[in-house]
Amino acid sequence: MKFEPSSSNFKKKVEDSFNRQGFMKLINARLIDVKPGYCEIHIPYDLKLTQQHGFFHAGIVSTVADNTAGYAGFSLMEEDSSILTVEFKLNLIAPGDGDILIGRANVLKRGRTLTICRSEVYVVKNGKEKLCAAAQSTLIELKNKSDKNDSSQT
Amino acid sequence: MKFEPSSSNFKKKVEDSFNRQGFMKLINARLIDVKPGYCEIHIPYDLKLTQQHGFFHAGIVSTVADNTAGYAGFSLMEEDSSILTVEFKLNLIAPGDGDILIGRANVLKRGRTLTICRSEVYVVKNGKEKLCAAAQSTLIELKNKSDKNDSSQT
Amino acid sequence: MKFEPSSSNFKKKVEDSFNRQGFMKLINARLIDVKPGYCEIHIPYDLKLTQQHGFFHAGIVSTVADNTAGYAGFSLMEEDSSILTVEFKLNLIAPGDGDILIGRANVLKRGRTLTICRSEVYVVKNGKEKLCAAAQSTLIELKNKSDKNDSSQT
Amino acid sequence: MKFEPSSSNFKKKVEDSFNRQGFMKLINARLIDVKPGYCEIHIPYDLKLTQQHGFFHAGIVSTVADNTAGYAGFSLMEEDSSILTVEFKLNLIAPGDGDILIGRANVLKRGRTLTICRSEVYVVKNGKEKLCAAAQSTLIELKNKSDKNDSSQT
Repeated sequence: MKFEPSSSNFKKKVEDSFNRQGFMKLINARLIDVKPGYCEIHIPYDLKLTQQHGFFHAGIVSTVADNTAGYAGFSLMEEDSSILTVEFKLNLIAPGDGDILIGRANVLKRGRTLTICRSEVYVVKNGKEKLCAAAQSTLIELKNKSDKNDSSQT
Repeated sequence: MKFEPSSSNFKKKVEDSFNRQGFMKLINARLIDVKPGYCEIHIPYDLKLTQQHGFFHAGIVSTVADNTAGYAGFSLMEEDSSILTVEFKLNLIAPGDGDILIGRANVLKRGRTLTICRSEVYVVKNGKEKLCAAAQSTLIELKNKSDKNDSSQT
Repeated sequence: MKFEPSSSNFKKKVEDSFNRQGFMKLINARLIDVKPGYCEIHIPYDLKLTQQHGFFHAGIVSTVADNTAGYAGFSLMEEDSSILTVEFKLNLIAPGDGDILIGRANVLKRGRTLTICRSEVYVVKNGKEKLCAAAQSTLIELKNKSDKNDSSQT
Repeated sequence: MKFEPSSSNFKKKVEDSFNRQGFMKLINARLIDVKPGYCEIHIPYDLKLTQQHGFFHAGIVSTVADNTAGYAGFSLMEEDSSILTVEFKLNLIAPGDGDILIGRANVLKRGRTLTICRSEVYVVKNGKEKLCAAAQSTLIELKNKSDKNDSSQT
């Protein structure tokens, strides 16, 4: 599917928002690619990001699934809109056993208020990508409410 | 609902597993309570855990929702079982704007293989708890596969 | 939780909407109770409503989970609003093996635009209720768009 | 993705199961296509299948999303296995306003016990297909438990 962004500045808008997230710094997440309706984020392995078996923690996997979906949706929205995740559902498909976690999300439907995305999370080990998780998300656009200010309730 | 744990050692089993999760240390999560079929985890506010508006990041909210559900389910399981989250669905209901995040999960149904939990996440501000998120999770018990060793696929 | 309906006419509004659903007639669903933020629907067993093992079909179980959630939310909304289900997630917990299916839903959070509900579906056999399914739903209120007219997209 | 069915008889196995579902007859659902890891079901419009605005009821939309996912997964399973839906999550994306509802599901991951599917539901109006709903499902394979007999709990 092809989508038209509402703002020509969409890439910078996403990067700025990403860079304001303290949590992305903490987990060393990298914004790799933003296209209209698409986002890709990578997270290198670190023992600090693990669950009890030394694999990427499900909380990290869901973070990357949610954040890629949010920024895939945000890439299409108005310059002065902000975005909130309404909800998402995530299947954990294989253990997060590898050197890097790759999240990729695509917009499935852009509505006037709500945007639906699907994301996949892959884990890379010995140079081979393996599907680790899959999510489906609902996002809401808050118009006239710049992402640079505080957000509020839906 | 009242549940009987399969292991009398259930509390220590959960604490040990929790303490082996590097990610729980990184985000300063505290295991506050474990009862048969119940778990409560707290996370104090830190700028490192925020999204672009300075609130708790959705990734942290989903981490606490998922981890409380997992340990609520794990509390009921056999001594030599391990547990995996199959999937969960999370509604983000209000911004994570507060000093502490509180996750509480209860088992809804314990099946032979699958266990279903519901969790709620509250954010505390000025001493007042507010519902921040609600989740519903599916967990799988891997029998004869101690949580202390590596886990594998379902 | 206690909720205040926006319309004193809330019960009749829900009944009217329910009675306009051709599908509720086809499956012989009965609207049993409507309170502010709550709805209960019953469906008696019929071979026409079954899956391959002669139990209530998952489609019927999800219909009752979704419809009770929708009307629990609708009970709180403005007289001239209509409601749409944005999404729901349903766990099928036990086979729908019984004489009657009972759906009960409660509003968890009423927001300005979005309302979150949880529903449980029970199956009754030999006079005993058993939990059959559990759902969590997101609903949207379309203001100034009476439920008696055609609905549109979100 | 390409999948290998565990039974060469997979198509007949799915058709037999579909034909034993009383509910499929009631709503005039037609099994259109079964391939390894894929299923397509059509439901023609009928006033009996509607919600309050005369569109396909969300219960019908979720029925087709769930049944296509179930049979996409079942197509890959052993001859003497049966299948149960563990859970699914469905986004309703556009009103079910049209002459025919088309459900298509693909297996995303086949695990030893659990299979993950994604389904899309389209509504056709004036010969044009429109995305109406999207789902993500978890299915469980019950081995040595023929689909022709009664199913039980997970």
